[in-house]
Amino acid sequence: MHTPGISITRRLRQTPFSKKVFKEGVSNFTVYNHMLLPTVFRSVEEDYHHLKNAVQVWDVACERQVEITGPDAKKLIEMLTPRDLRKLTIDKCLYAPLTNLSGGIINDPVIVKVEEDRYWISIADSDVLLWVSGIATGLSLNVRIFEPDVSILAFQGPLSNSLMQKVFGMDFDTVKLFSIVRVPFKDTSFIAARSGFSKQGGFEIYVENSTYAEGLWDVFFEAGKSLDVSAGCPNGIERVEAGLLSYGNDMTINDNPIECGLEKFCKKGIDWSTGKVKSFIGDKALKKVMEEGPKKIIRSIEMDGKPIPLCTEPWPVHFKNKKVGQITSAAFSPDFKTNVSLGMVSIEYSSGSSELEVETPDGTRLAKIHEKSFI
Amino acid sequence: MHTPGISITRRLRQTPFSKKVFKEGVSNFTVYNHMLLPTVFRSVEEDYHHLKNAVQVWDVACERQVEITGPDAKKLIEMLTPRDLRKLTIDKCLYAPLTNLSGGIINDPVIVKVEEDRYWISIADSDVLLWVSGIATGLSLNVRIFEPDVSILAFQGPLSNSLMQKVFGMDFDTVKLFSIVRVPFKDTSFIAARSGFSKQGGFEIYVENSTYAEGLWDVFFEAGKSLDVSAGCPNGIERVEAGLLSYGNDMTINDNPIECGLEKFCKKGIDWSTGKVKSFIGDKALKKVMEEGPKKIIRSIEMDGKPIPLCTEPWPVHFKNKKVGQITSAAFSPDFKTNVSLGMVSIEYSSGSSELEVETPDGTRLAKIHEKSFI
Repeated sequence: MHTPGISITRRLRQTPFSKKVFKEGVSNFTVYNHMLLPTVFRSVEEDYHHLKNAVQVWDVACERQVEITGPDAKKLIEMLTPRDLRKLTIDKCLYAPLTNLSGGIINDPVIVKVEEDRYWISIADSDVLLWVSGIATGLSLNVRIFEPDVSILAFQGPLSNSLMQKVFGMDFDTVKLFSIVRVPFKDTSFIAARSGFSKQGGFEIYVENSTYAEGLWDVFFEAGKSLDVSAGCPNGIERVEAGLLSYGNDMTINDNPIECGLEKFCKKGIDWSTGKVKSFIGDKALKKVMEEGPKKIIRSIEMDGKPIPLCTEPWPVHFKNKKVGQITSAAFSPDFKTNVSLGMVSIEYSSGSSELEVETPDGTRLAKIHEKSFI
Repeated sequence: MHTPGISITRRLRQTPFSKKVFKEGVSNFTVYNHMLLPTVFRSVEEDYHHLKNAVQVWDVACERQVEITGPDAKKLIEMLTPRDLRKLTIDKCLYAPLTNLSGGIINDPVIVKVEEDRYWISIADSDVLLWVSGIATGLSLNVRIFEPDVSILAFQGPLSNSLMQKVFGMDFDTVKLFSIVRVPFKDTSFIAARSGFSKQGGFEIYVENSTYAEGLWDVFFEAGKSLDVSAGCPNGIERVEAGLLSYGNDMTINDNPIECGLEKFCKKGIDWSTGKVKSFIGDKALKKVMEEGPKKIIRSIEMDGKPIPLCTEPWPVHFKNKKVGQITSAAFSPDFKTNVSLGMVSIEYSSGSSELEVETPDGTRLAKIHEKSFI
């Protein structure tokens, strides 16, 4: 299929890094939070090999921030997620699914506590600002909710530590996953977290104030010359190998966190300071799912045969002609020399012994469930 | 600039008509409510002339529906909008901006009353489902809110009445703007409204149940052969000539309905049945804007010189080197042989006498404010 073009208007917002991204020869985009997100520079395969061997600079400004400030900010944040937030301090951010009353996933953001009574929800692709504003309006909470001028620039790849060290002159080896450090730049400083949508390691810098964006981009490209730095983006092969779920692709509002393998982020319970059980939106629904067990679950799934075509729509998964699930992301893996994918399957067919078949646009493929991701 | 490609994944949802759209040779897409919306078939100019002379079939399934049902549905709907909804009956739909506490526009949908205690909000590009669910959750309202399996197929152009008549064997000439009729199809019937995102006249059919979608498409193409029917889409030239505002392009959450010229849809006042003043979210903020008058306003604006380039980002509007506004949508109009645009300007420069200049990517253009749209 010929790749259709994308019509760029103001509604598909450009980012503070877009001029740089165009200059680096971006080939394709997707749209994420009403904003442009690059998807290909050279080719998905070339970008994949480069990501796994060097370091890339990613314009992921589309991971927009929803800022919540004010006296009721903490109360509101606690209501939004099943995750136990007692470890959310100013030197640590947390991945925390947000749920609705039915336990369905509204979004799976990273939450940053910027300072006391001030949070950033760093969001996947849905209008969390409207969800949170709706709740605050309904409950007449004393908070201010808005999208601040903060755009994330990510550095991903095995050489990301070296690149960060070159730029900021600090040692980043000891910074743990989801830990935060402040990095200086010109007359300001930014929050930098060890996080990102790849398994190659790296950082996400929360660039506050767009006027610094292009300067920061240039500094990283200049410093990274000897490290073979290049522009990149979340890679459709690597993230499937890594089992990194994409909201809107692999999970939606119709799925709950238990079905998505996110049970470990649903451990909200006793508040030790008061002894009270903490409640959140969707607590009753999720408690029921946990007690009864999920009916379906996301798995890494391998498919045999020649490289599969692009997965642009869910592909049905069958067990003896009965539909038992669907593949939602898939790619041929050059490193594993097989087709890797992510899909949701009925719990009774989710073990490795099930003989499953996937209906792809170019025919039926035998499928094998993996208990773990490929990388 | 080379048009970048769009990477289609499940997250950019295809519609029940997408296979037909691909078959008709769609060239470009945009993304709207996490769904594919065609933007070009032949060329924007060719599509424009055809729309103004014949009839087009538009896949605007991306105008998703937010269904609200239940005992508190009416109460919730009334809270959402400054529009007086007393005329919202089952044979009429209403264009009704939704506002937040600050009076900012959340969305500018059409609201359909499907039956008693059952509404569809036919939305522009933002997650109204999350906004409405948030409010209902905060207020513990007794409603069910979800996205139903309803996809709009639109018929726009001067021959749309003829096409509708050929297909359904009914006379549509007497159906007024925003009026609703039920049209029969196979073993079901659909809501059809005289509405749509062009000024060429036409209808929008709310196709309930995706399994009917391709069949309906085929019936219209078969019946429309003699009317030169073709696949089309909202046209970037025609809608600017017509002064039709696009949410996300010409207005955002940072603009209120008065600034967007939508004051006539903000007349909610006395409920005659009870004598009470009806309140809505944002009432205090909007009352203040109405009393003080808006500080900026959207206008149709003409720019001189040769055809302008694509408007992919806001262009600054200057009065003697002072920024007084921005252009958000623009195109060269083949019919008017001039550059037409929409932009928000400070109220003191919003009359036709102001000598304004616009900074476009290929230089400064003299600009002239029009009190009315071009068509």
